[in-house]
Amino acid sequence: MTTEPSVPRQQPPAADPAGVRGTVRAVPAYPFTPIDVPIKLDQNESPYDFPADLKVLATERMLARPWNRYPDLHADRLRARIAAFEDWDPAGVVVTPGSNVLIKLLTELAGIGQTVLTVSPTFSVYTLEAQLLGAKLVQVPLNPDFSLPVEGLKAALRENPPGVLYVTQPHAPTGFVDTGAAVREVVEAAGDWVVVLDEAYHQYSGTDDRDLVREGENRLSLRTFSKAWGLAGLRLGYALTSPRLAAHLRKLVPAFNVGVLAEAALEVALEHPGYVLERVEEVRRERGRILAALQDHPTWQVLPSQSNFYLLRTPDAEAAYQYLLTQGIVVRRQDRLPGLAGCLRVAVGTPAENDALIAAARAFR
Amino acid sequence: MTTEPSVPRQQPPAADPAGVRGTVRAVPAYPFTPIDVPIKLDQNESPYDFPADLKVLATERMLARPWNRYPDLHADRLRARIAAFEDWDPAGVVVTPGSNVLIKLLTELAGIGQTVLTVSPTFSVYTLEAQLLGAKLVQVPLNPDFSLPVEGLKAALRENPPGVLYVTQPHAPTGFVDTGAAVREVVEAAGDWVVVLDEAYHQYSGTDDRDLVREGENRLSLRTFSKAWGLAGLRLGYALTSPRLAAHLRKLVPAFNVGVLAEAALEVALEHPGYVLERVEEVRRERGRILAALQDHPTWQVLPSQSNFYLLRTPDAEAAYQYLLTQGIVVRRQDRLPGLAGCLRVAVGTPAENDALIAAARAFR
Repeated sequence: MTTEPSVPRQQPPAADPAGVRGTVRAVPAYPFTPIDVPIKLDQNESPYDFPADLKVLATERMLARPWNRYPDLHADRLRARIAAFEDWDPAGVVVTPGSNVLIKLLTELAGIGQTVLTVSPTFSVYTLEAQLLGAKLVQVPLNPDFSLPVEGLKAALRENPPGVLYVTQPHAPTGFVDTGAAVREVVEAAGDWVVVLDEAYHQYSGTDDRDLVREGENRLSLRTFSKAWGLAGLRLGYALTSPRLAAHLRKLVPAFNVGVLAEAALEVALEHPGYVLERVEEVRRERGRILAALQDHPTWQVLPSQSNFYLLRTPDAEAAYQYLLTQGIVVRRQDRLPGLAGCLRVAVGTPAENDALIAAARAFR
Repeated sequence: MTTEPSVPRQQPPAADPAGVRGTVRAVPAYPFTPIDVPIKLDQNESPYDFPADLKVLATERMLARPWNRYPDLHADRLRARIAAFEDWDPAGVVVTPGSNVLIKLLTELAGIGQTVLTVSPTFSVYTLEAQLLGAKLVQVPLNPDFSLPVEGLKAALRENPPGVLYVTQPHAPTGFVDTGAAVREVVEAAGDWVVVLDEAYHQYSGTDDRDLVREGENRLSLRTFSKAWGLAGLRLGYALTSPRLAAHLRKLVPAFNVGVLAEAALEVALEHPGYVLERVEEVRRERGRILAALQDHPTWQVLPSQSNFYLLRTPDAEAAYQYLLTQGIVVRRQDRLPGLAGCLRVAVGTPAENDALIAAARAFR
């Protein structure tokens, strides 16, 4: 998963080669600027590295393998292991270098010249790929409490030609989780659109829409090793879907796309998954602690979240953002998104990092 | 780079979700089947692993870095190093997990709803991505001696709306290198189409079209660490182009797409590039030795090549392919491609592997 643009749109340059498509020219460059401060709470990463002993095991395995040979065509051995871990048919697993790659491929599968339907605000990669690849982008505003606009989505499904629908649980960037009934109502209304349940953060909410996905060949759960598994540096995302949909999706996956190094590391992670649960539990505890600690803040409000990040609503996002930087803490501005005036998105860090955030918030004048 | 389909087209399944685009449904699945034999000459890989001492250095560097943090947005530090190695403006370097990813992105940049122009036969990924993404695919047959059909390409450039033109030097799967004048004539005729000079194998031919690329902002050289660098398992390809074209291309590159492990390994390779030249020299010597050794073969003909593979023209490709398998050697059939009746594509292996290929060829009855 990635981050949102945070500066105004740029004008395209004056004289581009005619071969470059107009829609690509019109989209501004992604303006992410890395900021080097001690406490990094801006990318929803796990604050803990992969355990040191497992890193050693992983590199030993890398050393024992050839680096000059192409990896599996479609990460075949790796997806068999993921399938076993997830209790899923290996023929329905698709692995890519990051789940943002899968979003691109899903837009290629079902979006080009068709419809990409999502809510607003939403994860920026859905909308960016829709724009870049030439899909009709339809966004329905979330309800004021951040729940799914069920009737609005049903209307949009009726009124637009089929394509791909994204439902994010827990939602990003709000951290909100809908009722199972609401999610089911939207998914069932989608008929045989391609329906993507983006579950990048599902370990933190304790939700799992696998059973709903299993009920329809058009449904797909999008997952990642970048969050709860603490392996954002490896770039590994995957889909759980029907063998039928996976077969089409794999046509779009570049051959040999998961490298031998990441493959070896992920094997070790899947053989030693115990650390994940421990860390997820800590995130949940810390999330509650931060919410409680800032409940009586005079001007900043922590919004409840089921994810490893939360929104912090402030009277002036720019002032709050800059103030936190001076305290050595970088967070993500979300205040330009609809419904999120004044909001910053903050990842749950280590207890010490969260203490620093709480202290900074309390000291803010 | 990848391999070509080798079995007949399949029928699409009966009842796909309506959301899946028709063109994706119509394209058959990529039918590559890995074959486990001792001598693997079917993927144009380097027969030598990355040097053992460099593998150790690389894994030490991996251990020292966090795996839980996202890598650079656009492999920024890595592309600065590649730029220094290639004497190129870092703003004009784009890095992706494999050069086949760049071909997809170039089709997104300049192909969707526009034209993809190449020769025939050609590298299958150009045509596959054109079909999948909905470009008008135009292919001009190579001349009988495998040289570029200059007049045919110029006519196609005149007769079709702009898009992307692929020129492969040395060509795959023939290993042919055109004169600089012929390549220049085609590239200049392309006006401001996006022009891709695919130089995946250029170390083996000793050619380098950087200067031609530098002359036009619409031009791009496509390169890889999978061949001469012997790092196919890492999945790293890159483009050298103008800052202007790179800025548009980067919009299409998934954020954070080069993982921390491959990044660390490639840094070590770029700091110790001496092994590459030695191995390239050996490939060139071996290529000449194989050609000479089989010059008087009664029925098989080695076609001259400037790459790390060569075509072997036989009276019956199926029989020759199956026979080589019985000798523990896997090669790639190319006999269904236009102009390549009877042809197998064979990678240059180690001297011992090439001896085995020569002995098997001589013993064939």
